[in-house]
Amino acid sequence: MPQEMIRVGLVGVTGYTGMELARLLTGHPNMKLTAATSRTEAGKRLGDLYPFLNGLPGADVILIEPEPELIAKKCDLAFLAVPHTAATEMAAALVERGLKVVDLSADFRLKSAETYEQWYKVEHKRPDLLPEAVYGLPELYASDIAKARLVANPGCYPTSIILGMTAALADGLIETHGIVADSKSGVSGAGRSAKLGSLYCEVADSFKAYGIGTHRHTPEIEQELSRLAHGPMTISFNPHLVPMNRGILSTIYAQLKAPLSQADAQRVYEETWADSPWVRVLPSGQLPETRNVRGTMFCDMSVIVDPRTNRLIVVSVIDNVCRGASGQAIANANIMCGLPVTTGLMLCAMMP
Amino acid sequence: MPQEMIRVGLVGVTGYTGMELARLLTGHPNMKLTAATSRTEAGKRLGDLYPFLNGLPGADVILIEPEPELIAKKCDLAFLAVPHTAATEMAAALVERGLKVVDLSADFRLKSAETYEQWYKVEHKRPDLLPEAVYGLPELYASDIAKARLVANPGCYPTSIILGMTAALADGLIETHGIVADSKSGVSGAGRSAKLGSLYCEVADSFKAYGIGTHRHTPEIEQELSRLAHGPMTISFNPHLVPMNRGILSTIYAQLKAPLSQADAQRVYEETWADSPWVRVLPSGQLPETRNVRGTMFCDMSVIVDPRTNRLIVVSVIDNVCRGASGQAIANANIMCGLPVTTGLMLCAMMP
Amino acid sequence: MPQEMIRVGLVGVTGYTGMELARLLTGHPNMKLTAATSRTEAGKRLGDLYPFLNGLPGADVILIEPEPELIAKKCDLAFLAVPHTAATEMAAALVERGLKVVDLSADFRLKSAETYEQWYKVEHKRPDLLPEAVYGLPELYASDIAKARLVANPGCYPTSIILGMTAALADGLIETHGIVADSKSGVSGAGRSAKLGSLYCEVADSFKAYGIGTHRHTPEIEQELSRLAHGPMTISFNPHLVPMNRGILSTIYAQLKAPLSQADAQRVYEETWADSPWVRVLPSGQLPETRNVRGTMFCDMSVIVDPRTNRLIVVSVIDNVCRGASGQAIANANIMCGLPVTTGLMLCAMMP
Amino acid sequence: MPQEMIRVGLVGVTGYTGMELARLLTGHPNMKLTAATSRTEAGKRLGDLYPFLNGLPGADVILIEPEPELIAKKCDLAFLAVPHTAATEMAAALVERGLKVVDLSADFRLKSAETYEQWYKVEHKRPDLLPEAVYGLPELYASDIAKARLVANPGCYPTSIILGMTAALADGLIETHGIVADSKSGVSGAGRSAKLGSLYCEVADSFKAYGIGTHRHTPEIEQELSRLAHGPMTISFNPHLVPMNRGILSTIYAQLKAPLSQADAQRVYEETWADSPWVRVLPSGQLPETRNVRGTMFCDMSVIVDPRTNRLIVVSVIDNVCRGASGQAIANANIMCGLPVTTGLMLCAMMP
Repeated sequence: MPQEMIRVGLVGVTGYTGMELARLLTGHPNMKLTAATSRTEAGKRLGDLYPFLNGLPGADVILIEPEPELIAKKCDLAFLAVPHTAATEMAAALVERGLKVVDLSADFRLKSAETYEQWYKVEHKRPDLLPEAVYGLPELYASDIAKARLVANPGCYPTSIILGMTAALADGLIETHGIVADSKSGVSGAGRSAKLGSLYCEVADSFKAYGIGTHRHTPEIEQELSRLAHGPMTISFNPHLVPMNRGILSTIYAQLKAPLSQADAQRVYEETWADSPWVRVLPSGQLPETRNVRGTMFCDMSVIVDPRTNRLIVVSVIDNVCRGASGQAIANANIMCGLPVTTGLMLCAMMP
Repeated sequence: MPQEMIRVGLVGVTGYTGMELARLLTGHPNMKLTAATSRTEAGKRLGDLYPFLNGLPGADVILIEPEPELIAKKCDLAFLAVPHTAATEMAAALVERGLKVVDLSADFRLKSAETYEQWYKVEHKRPDLLPEAVYGLPELYASDIAKARLVANPGCYPTSIILGMTAALADGLIETHGIVADSKSGVSGAGRSAKLGSLYCEVADSFKAYGIGTHRHTPEIEQELSRLAHGPMTISFNPHLVPMNRGILSTIYAQLKAPLSQADAQRVYEETWADSPWVRVLPSGQLPETRNVRGTMFCDMSVIVDPRTNRLIVVSVIDNVCRGASGQAIANANIMCGLPVTTGLMLCAMMP
Repeated sequence: MPQEMIRVGLVGVTGYTGMELARLLTGHPNMKLTAATSRTEAGKRLGDLYPFLNGLPGADVILIEPEPELIAKKCDLAFLAVPHTAATEMAAALVERGLKVVDLSADFRLKSAETYEQWYKVEHKRPDLLPEAVYGLPELYASDIAKARLVANPGCYPTSIILGMTAALADGLIETHGIVADSKSGVSGAGRSAKLGSLYCEVADSFKAYGIGTHRHTPEIEQELSRLAHGPMTISFNPHLVPMNRGILSTIYAQLKAPLSQADAQRVYEETWADSPWVRVLPSGQLPETRNVRGTMFCDMSVIVDPRTNRLIVVSVIDNVCRGASGQAIANANIMCGLPVTTGLMLCAMMP
Repeated sequence: MPQEMIRVGLVGVTGYTGMELARLLTGHPNMKLTAATSRTEAGKRLGDLYPFLNGLPGADVILIEPEPELIAKKCDLAFLAVPHTAATEMAAALVERGLKVVDLSADFRLKSAETYEQWYKVEHKRPDLLPEAVYGLPELYASDIAKARLVANPGCYPTSIILGMTAALADGLIETHGIVADSKSGVSGAGRSAKLGSLYCEVADSFKAYGIGTHRHTPEIEQELSRLAHGPMTISFNPHLVPMNRGILSTIYAQLKAPLSQADAQRVYEETWADSPWVRVLPSGQLPETRNVRGTMFCDMSVIVDPRTNRLIVVSVIDNVCRGASGQAIANANIMCGLPVTTGLMLCAMMP
């Protein structure tokens, strides 16, 4: 047990990422939830809002209004689980008050305010903070995260695609044009607001595409893949909705630069991720399933050479709520606080 | 009511395609189920095997052994809903006895016995019948089907992909190399045999890829796309499993030959399918959902031009059990018997 | 084909019962949808609201405001698929204009306006119409329905419980006190409004009770069971929510008046329902499943004598949207219009 | 970290309870998985059988044959996750070799070998061990469990019902005759063997009853309720299958001995469970949901007085795999080893 617990706050608790942060913090040995905010539920006990928390750490926290001053008094670090634009000012206000901030929204992910404005159709209110915000993918930016006061937590789809492409791009196995990422997500990715399209009876026993070619995660994916490829890249990213609670599977198609054996592709992937606590490269011939990573930080991936079409195909799965949002946020917080990145996060998938 | 009902037999009734044939025949005004076979259930009343049929036409049929002589006495036409290889001899035996045959297996879909043997790893026992067997996609081959005594009913994935690509290939909008079809299917596609991987708890709340680059529907898709393209084509076909009962959605990525406006792509698709009773081209901006075609013959599709990547993306959905198997088999039988193709098949999706 | 089609209107089309009426009417040989109303969607084509209808009868109907005068001009009969209280005035206005009306709401089910006001917490605006309104359970009230101009379509839970108890009460097998009905419903029963508790991620992979002892269907069930029992009865009715789209299963527990053999109980049930087109009494030893009645008018039931506890246990299943609402409404309309009750309604369950 | 880890073995690892034990042990601070057995998979790495375990404690264990001698060498305590009858001899062999044993099968739950033989239709091979076997419900038998070398882990349904009835029976609120328990379970309760009835497409989007009045958990429930009631009791126990992975909800109906207010019932329940780490009595007006206990040891329950019918209704939920099997087994092992019962088991439900 640590002598001193890090006091963390949860700004925005009514969505699925807020819920998941509350869940994960119940088992974190070095962090203590000391504040949680909700405009609509302020005054309530957290355990009254979320009965599943009762009997566990954090259930007795009383929800407060999202006032920076209040949060700053109670916390060393804050997770922002509020919609984009709402996060901008809050992040600034908390950073200025000396808190470490992990922002789960999209507000500080894109280095270019112009690109942000183009895809999100809204002006960026604090472009001055963009240069210092670190893109919080621990596998790629751990040393920067360690020094950051503001971390932009990656999107769920980008996490699955960037991790899947890292080895292939870093090793120069594939052409950087013509990549297609066909992604499939569970319904929690659509958020917890009451809208017709997210009703059980509109989603269950059905499958659909949405946002073909137009999803806002596209520029984020392109920004990071371009860094890995050392040059600008365009990608065709296309999301789909799966009738399941959690999980993302991305099937990524790329053209090989030169003929490659399955064994060599496998070797490159295994070597790239040999020391990672969470990226698991499956043996050749096996393919990942989202359930194997449910509720965890693991990213399972397979790499397949298709000699008939001269393609490299990567299939990568994560849990969109844990690895794709709240778990990754805690991993970033761990690094920012000098803890081992895996602290409180070596979770096992629940099966079934 | 017709003066004379066509007497139809159902060879193999214990799988989902057999079940669906039984369902669809209860509402067919010109066909009467007069025989149904099952090695394991022979002697039972069909309604005892399938309680959902009781009270409806066909429930009182007594299951018999799959003996060609018996079937020939009772039927004018037979649907074969048995596994590949089992269908070969049965189809031959029934055709030789003067029955019309719609074979739902893969045995007569591929024009080349060599290709069959390469992908199915088994010798083809009746290659002599391949030349006369007609590939039963009504939209493409209605006039040949009308004259056929043996129709090879298409596979479920191929139906969704071929219909989706017809307009683009026929109009020469796209390059014929480099096409990717990323397909997602409900669990009924895996069949009704008791295997661990199809258990509820192994499938529910999860999503996975399978058979990346190696699925047996690949040569069937390539055969038909090559006909449409007037030249040999290779495709990267990759199936996935969705936790839902029915439905297939295929997302198909192709490179445009030349820049094309969304409006022009839309026009080509709408014109191609203007007279089809079942293919519904969605308005620009809408995307298909499998539930809208559940239990029906409809194929809903969207065509999207992605100018960022110079691609044509087609999203097409069908019901894998009805349009992708049993409903299409009845459509073929309708044509073979001189009935309107839509007889008994203008079904409305059940929502939700 | 009939020489004259009955012109029917659908008042309130955006809920699941409206959707289902639209579906069922596409296959009705003697009814034609000539009007459909929606305050929020007026002006739209019905097929634009519901893409699954395109290509089928009714898709081209233009939605109108729910104005009685407009509806009366276009229709001979109207189905009211609007919330309780909204139906009261509409039913009155249409009946007064000479239309036959089937009201799917609760407004005319209870014979006592006092009971209505006690359970629905609102004054009944047209108690004058209660005496003539007929409770639309075709198995019990066909001859009254045939003469009615206003039919109160039963609730979904009551349909499953009343049908399940009819034989036992009519034959006096059970005590009339101490009956427990433990019912389980699919999510469509909660309606199609956008509320948090009906979101996919709040319902999937979970099961809950709701409204223990307090559900509004209680007085309706008691009213009808009391008629069958020829004396006032109280029942403990307790609903639960199942993560599935459609279906209700009610498990009903009653005390036997005197020891009874399984064979005798079975005989009473089979004899009671021998001539019914839709009630299927399962053989002893079999138990019903909601999927066997999915999308249909069937009510499957099992009767079990439990000698250890001297109880009669009945398990009954229906489809809540078809038999429990829209299909039953069409059956009532059939009777009101002099058609066979089964017209357009001998549907087969979709499996799986 | 403890100086010495308890070495535990897992006999039978291919079922869902074996899987769950493996999951829970990855997070247990004082137990180390040192052996795991499977006849069919012996020789494999556990992580190869269950890819979700890779990267976590236990993944590298090599599966061995279920030989008592081998297990005894490697373990201090063994969990038996094998079918009934298979467990009898194994339990005896391991106990005789000095191991502590937690048997998850039904073999040692019933105190009477005759009752066992009557319900399980098989002779009990080691009735001599029945007197010393302790029924492993920690809330009721902690002090006996602490001294036991053989613990019979309770069934899933009994756990939910016994916990739900404890307060009412102990306080004498209800009649002991006429109790009905209507229980609903997720599909994992049916086990992990490949049978038709457990296929995804046979279960999804449907609900059914099974084993009305005949389920083998009945005598176990009656044995324990009789102890609580200080007299023999009969119960009507009736299970149902819910299309979800995990979870049991039991709705239990009992007759009140005397009129009781909701407040008094609530008080009795809250006082009974005030000190329990896992039993959570919900506030009046709230009802439990299985998702709130998913993957955990919690038992959430509501008590409702229904004055209309003079009944006490209790709704209780557990996770059938964790609380109803593997988690409870570890709780028992904790007590047997002198650890706090909650060690490694204060888990938070995954939402959604």
